[in-house]
Amino acid sequence: MSQIAKLPLLPIQHSTLITDLYQLTMAAGYFSQQMHQVSTFELYVRRLPKGRNFLVAAGLEQALSYLENLSFLPEEIEFLRTLPEFATVNPDFWGYLKQFKFEGEVWALPEGTVFFPYEPILRITAPVIQAQLVETWLLSLINYQTSVASKAARIWLACHSGEKPVEFVDFGARRAHGPEASVLATRAAYIGGAAATANVYAGMHLGLPVKGTAAHSWTMAFESEPEAFAAYHQTFPQHTTLLIDTYDTLQGARNAAKLGPEIQGVRLDSGDFLSLSRDVRQILDQAGLPQAKIVVSGDMNEYKIQELLSTQAPIDVFGVGTELTTCIDAPSLGGVYKLVEQVDPQGQTHYRVKLSSSKLSYPGAKQVWRFESEAGFGHDLLTLQSEAIDGANPLLTCVMQNGKRLNAPVPLSESRSHTLAQLALLPENQRQLLSVENYPVAQSPALKSLFESLQSAHQIEK
Amino acid sequence: MSQIAKLPLLPIQHSTLITDLYQLTMAAGYFSQQMHQVSTFELYVRRLPKGRNFLVAAGLEQALSYLENLSFLPEEIEFLRTLPEFATVNPDFWGYLKQFKFEGEVWALPEGTVFFPYEPILRITAPVIQAQLVETWLLSLINYQTSVASKAARIWLACHSGEKPVEFVDFGARRAHGPEASVLATRAAYIGGAAATANVYAGMHLGLPVKGTAAHSWTMAFESEPEAFAAYHQTFPQHTTLLIDTYDTLQGARNAAKLGPEIQGVRLDSGDFLSLSRDVRQILDQAGLPQAKIVVSGDMNEYKIQELLSTQAPIDVFGVGTELTTCIDAPSLGGVYKLVEQVDPQGQTHYRVKLSSSKLSYPGAKQVWRFESEAGFGHDLLTLQSEAIDGANPLLTCVMQNGKRLNAPVPLSESRSHTLAQLALLPENQRQLLSVENYPVAQSPALKSLFESLQSAHQIEK
Repeated sequence: MSQIAKLPLLPIQHSTLITDLYQLTMAAGYFSQQMHQVSTFELYVRRLPKGRNFLVAAGLEQALSYLENLSFLPEEIEFLRTLPEFATVNPDFWGYLKQFKFEGEVWALPEGTVFFPYEPILRITAPVIQAQLVETWLLSLINYQTSVASKAARIWLACHSGEKPVEFVDFGARRAHGPEASVLATRAAYIGGAAATANVYAGMHLGLPVKGTAAHSWTMAFESEPEAFAAYHQTFPQHTTLLIDTYDTLQGARNAAKLGPEIQGVRLDSGDFLSLSRDVRQILDQAGLPQAKIVVSGDMNEYKIQELLSTQAPIDVFGVGTELTTCIDAPSLGGVYKLVEQVDPQGQTHYRVKLSSSKLSYPGAKQVWRFESEAGFGHDLLTLQSEAIDGANPLLTCVMQNGKRLNAPVPLSESRSHTLAQLALLPENQRQLLSVENYPVAQSPALKSLFESLQSAHQIEK
Repeated sequence: MSQIAKLPLLPIQHSTLITDLYQLTMAAGYFSQQMHQVSTFELYVRRLPKGRNFLVAAGLEQALSYLENLSFLPEEIEFLRTLPEFATVNPDFWGYLKQFKFEGEVWALPEGTVFFPYEPILRITAPVIQAQLVETWLLSLINYQTSVASKAARIWLACHSGEKPVEFVDFGARRAHGPEASVLATRAAYIGGAAATANVYAGMHLGLPVKGTAAHSWTMAFESEPEAFAAYHQTFPQHTTLLIDTYDTLQGARNAAKLGPEIQGVRLDSGDFLSLSRDVRQILDQAGLPQAKIVVSGDMNEYKIQELLSTQAPIDVFGVGTELTTCIDAPSLGGVYKLVEQVDPQGQTHYRVKLSSSKLSYPGAKQVWRFESEAGFGHDLLTLQSEAIDGANPLLTCVMQNGKRLNAPVPLSESRSHTLAQLALLPENQRQLLSVENYPVAQSPALKSLFESLQSAHQIEK
């Protein structure tokens, strides 16, 4: 696992043009209007996905890497100049883009932090163009990894709901929304509690443990299943986990057992996993292979895992793919990125709110405080950044100043431990798979009264 | 749109290690067993996502680009050698990987082809290691783009369900599963019928039309909405589409209307879109701005669009994000990639099937034939590749031989036209948003009897 510290980042070096056109027209607009107020935006979610009780922050490393490397290529600037929208902008804008970089400050929840609606995951303070332009990319990176880490934490809880804990491994690359998404997903899944991944790239570049078995096509490529199994075992005598459901699962188990006590295990990928795992366990045990593990895959999720373990299905490892990687019951997190305050050239702070129906935003740069004891989390308090709260821990920490990271990347194994430590501190009812009453998140009196005063001001204007 | 022909490809140049470990252990296994049979795999889906009547093929260009560039870097081979699984493989395997490339043949449905379950989207014939190794990557690329193109086609149908047709634009980058996914999604959305995208990168590199408006933060960055609107209009006098729901939508419409007849339109992003669009239309018309368009965004999907248009909501353009890009009601397509036949060194063909419960595969390299008249599609017939069928068109065409493409990439505008032409030929009931009886896909007698004979053979063995 020592590679994690050495190779923590993905080489995501995409174009800054992977963004919404309006980010660039607004940039040109601010520039033309000579607006460069230092502005603070916060990234948060307004509500939990259906059936969830909490979220787990992930994606910060890629967000910081993006911000540190933000720039425009000359040919990208040339392309923008061809768009009719930009025909009327101040021509100095093009020189500005040429030297554009991110010089702001970032506060964030460490990856693996458990959080709740309206608590900022990320807070960015920079001249308005810089702070605005990064919205689309940051949302995409953080929405997705946070979705997957949160789903993985639920799967981890399910894997620990039976008499003995079991592990789960990410099998989802083929279901990811493209190859890059597969790597982002397996990174986030590991932070959320996955034990390993089948994704070899994540093994090499993120230092994650990689695991694999064999596919149906291996078995199908031989004239009979016993021949296929024998050939696999011959090549990998110490790493033989055989997929036994290509033709008939129980016959497959018997064929696997004939190879003797050296085999590591078998995998089931279809059928009734409860009865099959029991029968297969019996076949393996009777053949003198009590150490051979049973791996189960095939549309697994936290609910099915909990159900199987509650009925004492003798399963040792779950392979989880589609449901984890696409976060199938909540494939979009709905994170938003909202302007909360601006400082004008005279040093005056202007607080910003949005009052759209059911899409409110709260004003002011904020901090999240968690009241906790050894017994676990009590409640959270959302305050203005300037407030100091006794008896609670601030969750947002400063991770970037003047566009430079303040610390080396956190090893993924540490972020994973952080997640698991917090799951243990969550109130018992929040650890259930079904959604329960919301975890209490209060707002400080100062934050409440600031919001109410701005709300009244806009109503009077109107 | 001329750029489409010049710049059709995304520069996806990821590592070949973005794959499942078992693809590489099986490769080592085949190599160690000296198995190099020419093998045919087919990529298809077993069932339609819930509520769907058809799918639209997309992702072929990126699949071919991947196959043409397949190779291993020396440091990747070094990494694999460190994995304990490979300690016992034939050491010549490492030299084999060093010179590894894809030399096979590919048949495929052209992008934009409407298809149904069990019809191969892609058929690959190559020595078994080559044909097997590409599974994970091909599934990820084609599953995702096909999902999005299929969803987009449904949204296109909804946009054409009212009295006058309306357009939709992809707004989904921030909800994509990472930046790369946002570009894959907007490409697929365009193939499926989107008129444009907000994703600037897709404008530059795929030649797609780009469109944008402004965000809430623009309005919030000024002391009042009228100031914000005036400043935007000053910068973009010919491209002013204003977001009017930051504080109060109707007041926003009045503030926008005051800017005069030059403004292009307004966007609503929250609230009751039917009543708001009617009231906003009235405000714009009474101010003498009948040409100003109303754009609506905010969790739009095909059902909501159809509903709004059925009640004559005066909406001109829909911005569709989350639901399209994450394909929210079917975020995984469930495409599979299965071995169907192999030719041994003696030239003998061995047909392959999988008999796992509810996960059957059918044997033999196949072709899909569509019986159609000017009135539209009649039915499809799945046959062995060797069969010739009168009165129907074969849908799979050969696109790669000896690892080289046979044709230049198809311009995206052509793939989009292909989709729309086929939507017009779909049986009327298949064009409904709710799922109806399956479109008829028959199997040829030769295919049926081959499957049955293999099924019996495996049952006798057992």
